[in-house]
Amino acid sequence: MIIEEYFKCLSDRERAIFEGAISMGALFHQFIGTPVNRESLKSLRVAIEDSIKLQPSIEDVKVEINLEDSENEFGYVSLEGRMLNVKITSRVRDVRAIIRMEYIDELNYPLIYVEDIKEK
Amino acid sequence: MIIEEYFKCLSDRERAIFEGAISMGALFHQFIGTPVNRESLKSLRVAIEDSIKLQPSIEDVKVEINLEDSENEFGYVSLEGRMLNVKITSRVRDVRAIIRMEYIDELNYPLIYVEDIKEK
Amino acid sequence: MIIEEYFKCLSDRERAIFEGAISMGALFHQFIGTPVNRESLKSLRVAIEDSIKLQPSIEDVKVEINLEDSENEFGYVSLEGRMLNVKITSRVRDVRAIIRMEYIDELNYPLIYVEDIKEK
Amino acid sequence: MIIEEYFKCLSDRERAIFEGAISMGALFHQFIGTPVNRESLKSLRVAIEDSIKLQPSIEDVKVEINLEDSENEFGYVSLEGRMLNVKITSRVRDVRAIIRMEYIDELNYPLIYVEDIKEK
Repeated sequence: MIIEEYFKCLSDRERAIFEGAISMGALFHQFIGTPVNRESLKSLRVAIEDSIKLQPSIEDVKVEINLEDSENEFGYVSLEGRMLNVKITSRVRDVRAIIRMEYIDELNYPLIYVEDIKEK
Repeated sequence: MIIEEYFKCLSDRERAIFEGAISMGALFHQFIGTPVNRESLKSLRVAIEDSIKLQPSIEDVKVEINLEDSENEFGYVSLEGRMLNVKITSRVRDVRAIIRMEYIDELNYPLIYVEDIKEK
Repeated sequence: MIIEEYFKCLSDRERAIFEGAISMGALFHQFIGTPVNRESLKSLRVAIEDSIKLQPSIEDVKVEINLEDSENEFGYVSLEGRMLNVKITSRVRDVRAIIRMEYIDELNYPLIYVEDIKEK
Repeated sequence: MIIEEYFKCLSDRERAIFEGAISMGALFHQFIGTPVNRESLKSLRVAIEDSIKLQPSIEDVKVEINLEDSENEFGYVSLEGRMLNVKITSRVRDVRAIIRMEYIDELNYPLIYVEDIKEK
């Protein structure tokens, strides 16, 4: 069975949403807990972007890590959802979905949502 | 801003696909690597189901873990994608999406796909 | 090469410390980020204990998860280090090491330390 | 209570073993499952080294990732224990412990062991 068979009940738009959402769930649960501080922040950001970009239909990944003043006695913290601001662009043929993860203070929650969908 | 505002560009059907996909990506990347053998298999399965069911719009989660003869010298293995067979049902109002993860031998890959979408 | 060869530079006491420490590092980084609330707390606790007990030289694992009032808008939280209180007993022949992980407020850190070592 | 109080039952040698072992358990369970291929291999390696080096008493971390021909239909794989060859150097005052993780084919297991301990 070819891969396309598995997705025949989805439109291109739906599949772009689908693939972007998988990758955002993956990103959060793979990297939460990683030790990080100001010095290691850049290499962690690049590794997250490079690895998640490999997943099916992912065109671009942009990660911001906001440490504020959250270092502990030992000079680092474990990566938490509240520190992450992420933008994943997934693409299926002519449709691009922009998926975001952003910590929403009033919800006390790193919300994953669809920011925009662009169809040519 | 209320939560619904973040999803106004999605239909109920699209949002069911979206939420189910996030949870499947989460499930894989949270639990891959966990030590498991025949004795601990059931408690791991139950914990995966119970935790992923908490995520937004998730109605049901069914996990099968296939260990075959993959125990090592120490009597356990690390959970791998090839061992997992998962079915997540997400629901947004009248729409249910059935998301599957299944190891496809010919792809050498734990494929995540949409099995069915039911709209009343 | 038999396994014992790999540990010939360690005393039984040192190896008990070694194996308990590996398992505590494993526990933290495997399960941090898992969705949890009051209902799913018990199954998560049991799965953590059962899986970490499989690792070499681990005799017992006791996990407490303290949720306090940390549920969010969606009725659950991601497991964080500050919620965990863990006791791992590792054993190598006549030596038992009691390894603890406990959140220390003044350090703002889930400290992993050796509580006791018992030699017959 | 100062941190040293928590480690008073350990010699410097034992504490070097302890801290190195925690970090090796952490490394495995944090990063197993990460998508990786030949292009992203370097950034993942650097991020693992940089993040684990932050943990207490860790002086150096060297990671090798061996992909062989394990890419799938989609051009990447999930990081597995069999791909990792790691060397962590922990140091407590005059004692250095060299901790290794290496996949041992005959055990079918990514063995974590102490390669050497150097005391001045």
